[in-house]
Amino acid sequence: MTNLNPSAKAMVPFVSVDNMMRLIHHTGVENMLRDLAAYVEEDFRRWELFDKTPRVASHSDVGVIELMPTSDGEAYGFKYVNGHPKNTSEGLQTVTAFGLLADVYTGYPVLLTEMTMLTALRTAATSAMVAKYLAPKDAHTMAMIGNGAQSEFQTLAMKAICGLKSVRLYDQDPKATEKCARNLAGCGLEVVKCKTPEEAIEGAQILTTCTADKQYATILSDNMVGPGVHINAIGGDCPGKTELAAGILSRSDVFVEFPPQTRIEGEIQQMPEDFEVTEMWQVITGQKQGRRDDRQITLFDSVGFAIEDFSALRYIRDQIKGSEFFIELDMLADPDDPRDLFGMLQRAGTAHPA
Amino acid sequence: MTNLNPSAKAMVPFVSVDNMMRLIHHTGVENMLRDLAAYVEEDFRRWELFDKTPRVASHSDVGVIELMPTSDGEAYGFKYVNGHPKNTSEGLQTVTAFGLLADVYTGYPVLLTEMTMLTALRTAATSAMVAKYLAPKDAHTMAMIGNGAQSEFQTLAMKAICGLKSVRLYDQDPKATEKCARNLAGCGLEVVKCKTPEEAIEGAQILTTCTADKQYATILSDNMVGPGVHINAIGGDCPGKTELAAGILSRSDVFVEFPPQTRIEGEIQQMPEDFEVTEMWQVITGQKQGRRDDRQITLFDSVGFAIEDFSALRYIRDQIKGSEFFIELDMLADPDDPRDLFGMLQRAGTAHPA
Repeated sequence: MTNLNPSAKAMVPFVSVDNMMRLIHHTGVENMLRDLAAYVEEDFRRWELFDKTPRVASHSDVGVIELMPTSDGEAYGFKYVNGHPKNTSEGLQTVTAFGLLADVYTGYPVLLTEMTMLTALRTAATSAMVAKYLAPKDAHTMAMIGNGAQSEFQTLAMKAICGLKSVRLYDQDPKATEKCARNLAGCGLEVVKCKTPEEAIEGAQILTTCTADKQYATILSDNMVGPGVHINAIGGDCPGKTELAAGILSRSDVFVEFPPQTRIEGEIQQMPEDFEVTEMWQVITGQKQGRRDDRQITLFDSVGFAIEDFSALRYIRDQIKGSEFFIELDMLADPDDPRDLFGMLQRAGTAHPA
Repeated sequence: MTNLNPSAKAMVPFVSVDNMMRLIHHTGVENMLRDLAAYVEEDFRRWELFDKTPRVASHSDVGVIELMPTSDGEAYGFKYVNGHPKNTSEGLQTVTAFGLLADVYTGYPVLLTEMTMLTALRTAATSAMVAKYLAPKDAHTMAMIGNGAQSEFQTLAMKAICGLKSVRLYDQDPKATEKCARNLAGCGLEVVKCKTPEEAIEGAQILTTCTADKQYATILSDNMVGPGVHINAIGGDCPGKTELAAGILSRSDVFVEFPPQTRIEGEIQQMPEDFEVTEMWQVITGQKQGRRDDRQITLFDSVGFAIEDFSALRYIRDQIKGSEFFIELDMLADPDDPRDLFGMLQRAGTAHPA
């Protein structure tokens, strides 16, 4: 009899949301943030190797669906991600995502995984990895402005990677602040709930902004930002969406992932096209300076780049090997004779007649 | 207790290779080819509606990985497909594929499916749907040149949709012809094994070429093609890969899917940039003429377009409703409160401690 069991190559490991959460708990969320930061940092070091295709966006009146592919020549990865701000009011996620890693040599997928949870982790890990280079050395307090889905991950990454001791929470919706404070209780940080953004930034060396409005907003105004701080600007990540007053950008040294994308999607979309920025990978490889002095304002204008997703996919592929945190999906047709796809179909009909 | 079962919206129906084969046998392969042709034809009729993003290709020395997205404004679909000619010699498929359909309004995926098998079906269904418009009215015999993975599907689609009675097989590898003839035995067609391409085209009104070499080849030379035939050219589908002598193109009326793509990937890459072609959707909507007379040579220069995959994804989504031919994948994180992704993660840790 013909063997109808798909061969190993035809099976694609799949990490469900449930298995991703099990893996995070098994690893420990702070350990995983540290591991992810190391993978992202490694890929920033070999930045020039990567195929930096722009993301492919399909826009509608209510949102966007994007594919973010990249490759280092050995592996190929892409993320599917949507952005639908109106979803929240309908009880759905603004952003959902999944990702795939494939072998460049064969073209065969080697990993399919949920990436809603994983994107939250990689975004936070990237922020903290960057803050390690840019924040003042003795940074111990962060203002977390915007207490939505990203806020706890950002906070724990800054704790795990930068040694944060205290977080000051503010959101225009006090319920979001309550939720964030509740989730962070017992994590070993001092958690302070604040009633205004001004109160939140008191004594903070790191200012993280992560709000969700798809409009030009001014979460931080110019006079709120004093010398020496590091601003970690997460929320401005699509055309028409910014969080910072232009005056802050003018006084800051701005660090970015990939300038062509950041000029369209980041805080610097408010600035002239030739506004000076430093590419973060050049700071990490030592080609450019990061923080220069104690009074300098550094600003990471983060929009999220495909290479960070690639790092996260690589990490998950490595982590699940030999583990129980995935199932195998029969996703690729793999006939014994590659030219005999039809014969494979015929034999399947004999095996389980309709 | 918090309900940890993912909500319905977080689950994505997945059609495995095994379930796709069950669905095909349940439906009947010829019925499915007819159904698919109807879906493809419907989408060609509303061609102008579609977002026609070019495919996003990642090339390496040994192959290519492509994402082919499109949208009709209500649904969004993409196909992942690789092309690795050297794979066959390593016991792997040259082409593997999977696809995804999503709801444009929410951005949530609604179907994930294998597409290696499905692509073979949609390619054949498209060829036959086009031949219905372009082949001579009394066409009953097809030469099938290239007897690889596509050949049986092409043949059965021409039988189901165009009333084919006889197929004449040729491949430079006699084993491929033997395989194809064996697979087609008992399907209700006269099957003739031929030793040369010249023998294969004797008395044929439809000439289908579908060979796999990634190089400029001449499967049909100019003097082999007489008046009145329809040529269904499937194999020339990437830069540097063609099957027909340029002289044949000069004497034919050439019909294409999407000219910007066909000029790069199709047979007409051999011709000047302004070589005249007719878009097939315009024939189907009646804006342009198809076959004009009995002596005309019509040529469908098929490269495969994202809209055909979209039609196939729509069809599978409709077919599996209420069926047993899929499983649900927990692929999207869906917290009760969209802002509380971290809380969802924490509660999962309580439910199954590491």
